[in-house]
Amino acid sequence: MKYLAALDRHDMNAWLECFAEEGSYITRENHDAGLPVAMMLDDTRARLKDRVKFVDEVWSGTYEDYATRHFVQRFECTQGSGGRVNVRSNFIVSYTNRQGGSDILVTGVYEDDIDLSKPEARFKSKRAIMDTVTTPRYLVYPI
Amino acid sequence: MKYLAALDRHDMNAWLECFAEEGSYITRENHDAGLPVAMMLDDTRARLKDRVKFVDEVWSGTYEDYATRHFVQRFECTQGSGGRVNVRSNFIVSYTNRQGGSDILVTGVYEDDIDLSKPEARFKSKRAIMDTVTTPRYLVYPI
Amino acid sequence: MKYLAALDRHDMNAWLECFAEEGSYITRENHDAGLPVAMMLDDTRARLKDRVKFVDEVWSGTYEDYATRHFVQRFECTQGSGGRVNVRSNFIVSYTNRQGGSDILVTGVYEDDIDLSKPEARFKSKRAIMDTVTTPRYLVYPI
Repeated sequence: MKYLAALDRHDMNAWLECFAEEGSYITRENHDAGLPVAMMLDDTRARLKDRVKFVDEVWSGTYEDYATRHFVQRFECTQGSGGRVNVRSNFIVSYTNRQGGSDILVTGVYEDDIDLSKPEARFKSKRAIMDTVTTPRYLVYPI
Repeated sequence: MKYLAALDRHDMNAWLECFAEEGSYITRENHDAGLPVAMMLDDTRARLKDRVKFVDEVWSGTYEDYATRHFVQRFECTQGSGGRVNVRSNFIVSYTNRQGGSDILVTGVYEDDIDLSKPEARFKSKRAIMDTVTTPRYLVYPI
Repeated sequence: MKYLAALDRHDMNAWLECFAEEGSYITRENHDAGLPVAMMLDDTRARLKDRVKFVDEVWSGTYEDYATRHFVQRFECTQGSGGRVNVRSNFIVSYTNRQGGSDILVTGVYEDDIDLSKPEARFKSKRAIMDTVTTPRYLVYPI
């Protein structure tokens, strides 16, 4: 929930805080599409931090901002060992442009490996597998 | 949940019943848009009742009816004092026109102040902050 | 949840497993539209099995495949007798075509009669009442 809220208010530091110290994040297109190239691949803390820096500083002012709303539908939840849990959810992200019209930005599946052994739940890894290839706009923020 | 169900079946009296005696309802456009004008502002019981009357009686027959489906994604929930709870949720409302095509009507955030001290939960206040400005049709029913 | 997951991965046998031995499935258009014709009506186990066979074997290769994501918003839940429960939920199904663009396929209401008396919950009956009449494509899979 914090993850969704962080992204929808474009708070990249809060997004970073959702990941464990050794957490990773990857978005890629749907398995079946036969396009194995990851769009975003942040497999170390340093790369996660880089993404925050790029969105907040490097790209700042170079893109047209946009509003998103995330919705998730959990459909599978399996207990792992050591306080780990694997969750799979459908996601749909809506998108509102500057003119105020709303549309679907992207849909797909989250595959999350979550560490519940600490007081605050964190992602060990989060994979966002997108159905949507031709998004109505360039993606700046993670999904 | 009763709130969503009431709106989706266009039952304005059931909608009214979701509010506490001194409850208020407001919809307005996104904070960031710099447009502070509320689209709907019902800050007293009398104004809430007026809205029911307008939709059910005054406007009756003057607009093309439309079907909606509400979906909410809660992302924040904080306990207040005296059995009060503050909840923030993303919402997406779909819209189906008379021709039977479905689209996104509006997306945004609900900011709810809920009174749980009575047997039935009621809204002390409900704010619907909409991302979408150019909705595909004129809004008759509350969001 | 298993139901949604089965459909979104096009696993018709897993879909069948969500129904009780004497379970039934029906999709039809919105009550108010005055079109009482059911689009899909599988009121016996044999007809449910037939649907699996049609999608998996008979129609195989005759249609352009498409990806769906199901999202549900439960809004009513009433306890029946003998471990039965009646649930009503809004649903929205997104659709991604081969070109990779996503849109709304269909919205509506599920009316589910669920048997919780066995270790695994099963549908006694599932009705999908669709708002959307002019879907962006021919429906192959159940909703």
